[in-house]
Amino acid sequence: NIQTETPIEAKDPLPSWEEGKTKESIKSYVVDVTTEGSPNFIPITDRIATFDNDGNLWSEQPAYFQLFFAISRIKALAPEHPEWKNKQPYKAVLENDMKSLMASGEKGLIEIVMTTHAGMTVEAFEKIVKDWLAKAKHPRFGKPYNELIYQPMLELLNYLRANDFKTYIVSGGGIEFMRPWVEEAYGIPKDQVVGSSIKTEFSLENGQAQIKRLPAIDFIDDKAGKPIGINKFIGKKPVFTSGNSDGDLQMMQYGDSNKHKSFQLYLHHTDAEREWAYDRDSHIGQLNKGLDYAIENGWTITDMKKDWKVIYPFQLNEAKN
Amino acid sequence: NIQTETPIEAKDPLPSWEEGKTKESIKSYVVDVTTEGSPNFIPITDRIATFDNDGNLWSEQPAYFQLFFAISRIKALAPEHPEWKNKQPYKAVLENDMKSLMASGEKGLIEIVMTTHAGMTVEAFEKIVKDWLAKAKHPRFGKPYNELIYQPMLELLNYLRANDFKTYIVSGGGIEFMRPWVEEAYGIPKDQVVGSSIKTEFSLENGQAQIKRLPAIDFIDDKAGKPIGINKFIGKKPVFTSGNSDGDLQMMQYGDSNKHKSFQLYLHHTDAEREWAYDRDSHIGQLNKGLDYAIENGWTITDMKKDWKVIYPFQLNEAKN
Ligand SMILES: [Ca+2]
Ligand SMILES: [Ca+2]
Repeated sequence: NIQTETPIEAKDPLPSWEEGKTKESIKSYVVDVTTEGSPNFIPITDRIATFDNDGNLWSEQPAYFQLFFAISRIKALAPEHPEWKNKQPYKAVLENDMKSLMASGEKGLIEIVMTTHAGMTVEAFEKIVKDWLAKAKHPRFGKPYNELIYQPMLELLNYLRANDFKTYIVSGGGIEFMRPWVEEAYGIPKDQVVGSSIKTEFSLENGQAQIKRLPAIDFIDDKAGKPIGINKFIGKKPVFTSGNSDGDLQMMQYGDSNKHKSFQLYLHHTDAEREWAYDRDSHIGQLNKGLDYAIENGWTITDMKKDWKVIYPFQLNEAKN
Repeated sequence: NIQTETPIEAKDPLPSWEEGKTKESIKSYVVDVTTEGSPNFIPITDRIATFDNDGNLWSEQPAYFQLFFAISRIKALAPEHPEWKNKQPYKAVLENDMKSLMASGEKGLIEIVMTTHAGMTVEAFEKIVKDWLAKAKHPRFGKPYNELIYQPMLELLNYLRANDFKTYIVSGGGIEFMRPWVEEAYGIPKDQVVGSSIKTEFSLENGQAQIKRLPAIDFIDDKAGKPIGINKFIGKKPVFTSGNSDGDLQMMQYGDSNKHKSFQLYLHHTDAEREWAYDRDSHIGQLNKGLDYAIENGWTITDMKKDWKVIYPFQLNEAKN
């Protein structure tokens, strides 16, 4: 970049981050590995950054947003399925009985997901997700779910891209649940989204090719699945990894084994007032082993309460004084 | 692109293609869909081009080059496996008995592939592929395999990229067999390679994360697997598809169903003298149903003998007169 007249360095690339150790360590890493002549310089083609999504780029409480989507779909489809009134786990969903839904366990949740995520073409599913995002509101904030993304993380994504990092999502969430909205939300294109997936089927109907979603799991992009998914989809080891739970630990260990100088960033949810506070004992986004490993290995831990001036973009105006 | 002084349009973007219907149809398509104001204009983010590899970007005769690689590995590993001398399909490989090897069928070939492609880390396998490419020579041309790439197709890839198409490989070959060399050969980065894959396993050994290749098929990127792989890895329907065999038909039908104006290009191997001539009855790269479908649907068919001035880059100097 030949920008001799504009002193870009003078501008703060992370204005929503409080000054302090976390922000300083991010910035000094980026400067170190992108400065030609630095012993830690990383060629542009190796600047791979992978970001978990739930609880890391957007919120995940009081339940994963994809579960809210599934519940909304069950309710929308219920008129066509009168038998659901007396059949679990559907009955629990229709009666807003989250306790019975959770009691249905993984089996019940998978059934809810398959019923709502399969059986249609890829294009039809994309439209369903977009329609939901356009209408649904988060129970606590009363905002569309895709507005509950973290302003400081958006700045971090932009900062990395401005320094020629290629940013990917690597999430336990469904690839095709994320693809319809992540480009607009995060500036991450569809082919830079790694996630869990269900099987699909190709067919030619009246000369028209289509891909239909099937009610069978193809790949779970969580825990050891994350580095496996990164290798499968990206084919390169990341140098910058970012997550918030034990499900990200293996991805971050994988980044940590890079021959280049790498950076691991855990987001610690410490802000019950502005967002949520949870870690070692949480059913959603548990951060226990990962927290110990991060401390032992000197990884950087964002303390949401201390390190972030603002949580969501819609609070930016409120925050400005 | 602001290039008012250099009349780029005046330069032939496809100099190794003979003037004629094929070249003209490619060029007029690209101009049509990239000219703002054209009723067929395609936004840049939707300009997805997918290319089969074997027999489409490089040769595939007298056997798939990945099979030559596997045979070479069996021979290299043989000293550690004295039992292979009397055990099929290894015996056939060691005795250069291609007839018995082929008689071992799909089961025999899969065993050869698993023995040679699994059991090591991803990095170790990448090095094995690169070492092989650096030393092995094609039996007919006496050149490294990665020099047997098609000059006219390199020009086509460059021409599309110059017009803001994003070019991907979508091949029945192994992703991790291709990734080590396709960036240099075709200008296609590792994360734009869709292909067949075997399963992998993540582990942490002495604090070092590694991904090991397992002897089990994960995904076969052929026939209906191609559009499925495109949807999984890219998440967008291609507008430009290019292949040479019946294994590409579904990918091309998928492209053909694009809401945007699309282009399907079949390469017909018609040149026994400079390359090979084969189609409907070939055991490798059979083009039968695909040829009928292409003719019926008005797709473009490259006649290698008539349409290409030169086959391989190393012949460019010979061709210049
Ligand atoms: Ca998470
Ligand atoms: Ca082929």
